[in-house]
Amino acid sequence: MPIEAPILGVRALFFDVFGSMVDWRSSVAREADRILGALGYELDWLALADAWRGEYQPGMEQVRAGRQPFAKLDVLHRQGLQRLLPRFGLQNLSDEVLDDLTRVWHRLDAWPDVAAALARLKRKFWLAPVSNGNISLMVDLARRNNFPWDAILGAEIARDYKRKPGVYLAACAAFDLEPAQCMMVAAHSDDLAAAAALGLRTAHTARVNEYGPNTGEAAPTVKTDFAAKNLADLADKLGA
Amino acid sequence: MPIEAPILGVRALFFDVFGSMVDWRSSVAREADRILGALGYELDWLALADAWRGEYQPGMEQVRAGRQPFAKLDVLHRQGLQRLLPRFGLQNLSDEVLDDLTRVWHRLDAWPDVAAALARLKRKFWLAPVSNGNISLMVDLARRNNFPWDAILGAEIARDYKRKPGVYLAACAAFDLEPAQCMMVAAHSDDLAAAAALGLRTAHTARVNEYGPNTGEAAPTVKTDFAAKNLADLADKLGA
Repeated sequence: MPIEAPILGVRALFFDVFGSMVDWRSSVAREADRILGALGYELDWLALADAWRGEYQPGMEQVRAGRQPFAKLDVLHRQGLQRLLPRFGLQNLSDEVLDDLTRVWHRLDAWPDVAAALARLKRKFWLAPVSNGNISLMVDLARRNNFPWDAILGAEIARDYKRKPGVYLAACAAFDLEPAQCMMVAAHSDDLAAAAALGLRTAHTARVNEYGPNTGEAAPTVKTDFAAKNLADLADKLGA
Repeated sequence: MPIEAPILGVRALFFDVFGSMVDWRSSVAREADRILGALGYELDWLALADAWRGEYQPGMEQVRAGRQPFAKLDVLHRQGLQRLLPRFGLQNLSDEVLDDLTRVWHRLDAWPDVAAALARLKRKFWLAPVSNGNISLMVDLARRNNFPWDAILGAEIARDYKRKPGVYLAACAAFDLEPAQCMMVAAHSDDLAAAAALGLRTAHTARVNEYGPNTGEAAPTVKTDFAAKNLADLADKLGA
């Protein structure tokens, strides 16, 4: 499948996934309700999702700072969950239930515009997630949501976590491209700033409801090459 | 997309690519003819393809034995080509032409049954190449031939070359699977033997014309779980 003339010389689009492509918050809440509700628990499921996501950066920071060897995000998700159990009265869950809960992150739903926009973008660019999620998690999300990735890049390939430069640069290298030929697409300005500092192009896609109604970035807080309402809007702007 | 009940507990199929999925020999001959023929060269193009492929194992052996750091197969293909130039009277080619020639390995055609068989198999199994080809090469082949990979695994992920055990085991680990849940699919018995020694399941797909008419393995020379006439036949045997 030939690639058409690129915009700004960009050949590949790299995607942040959690929050940018998938709605982790309501998906985790729904799946936790399903698993723990069946066991008789009644919790504020959105609060559990938020608290669990709150463990995300501290968990990765252990790896980024070299205090813990690289471990897949599934492992960090499980460690984060473990730390939350007393706060939510979940100390008595079996290992089996904890494993099942940890895998709710493999069952997240995409924002509604994503699959169709990726199908359009694939005609013009190579597409890969450059996410902190591990490969098997990315495959589950891709199968669930029809994400047509050309390859799965990101943390597990680089064996480190964003926003460390090596994660972005390993993705460029895997595709034999210079940073300027790659564009990072994300709903988070800090992700885009880290990519731009290395010479990648950047596109912001707003996800205003990521942490609940009107909590997400409506627009980037840093300079980007594109700022779009969502991924469909970005596909329009890129002529896909 | 849910995966149906697996055969033998297998959840993922891993694919050898050169020879097993794509016809490197006539594709390389055709592409070399196109590039060099336009420059006035007349060669035995199949002999060039065969000689180039002959440089393949010695090149990788430098890496496997630790005498050369890991380098992508594109780099080894270029080094192998360099060694062939005097033999084929090609000493005067420019770097640009040599680069273009090296990328003929990105433009190989699949055997005719492969794309449709992979589409069937994808409904039942996770699919990934576990090839010695680098990621960008695998993406080019996938786009050209409609290979619906879930992820691209293999040498570049493991940073070593088959038949080193780490290449197969890194692929299993990337998918969070035990070796017994993975099946290696190849037209080459030595590849299957190396996988089976690690506990992977194995399937042989005959490609009798790989090195020219009736030169390939019509059947495995080692014990395998399945032996198929081609990938369509394997899809039948796996109930896909």
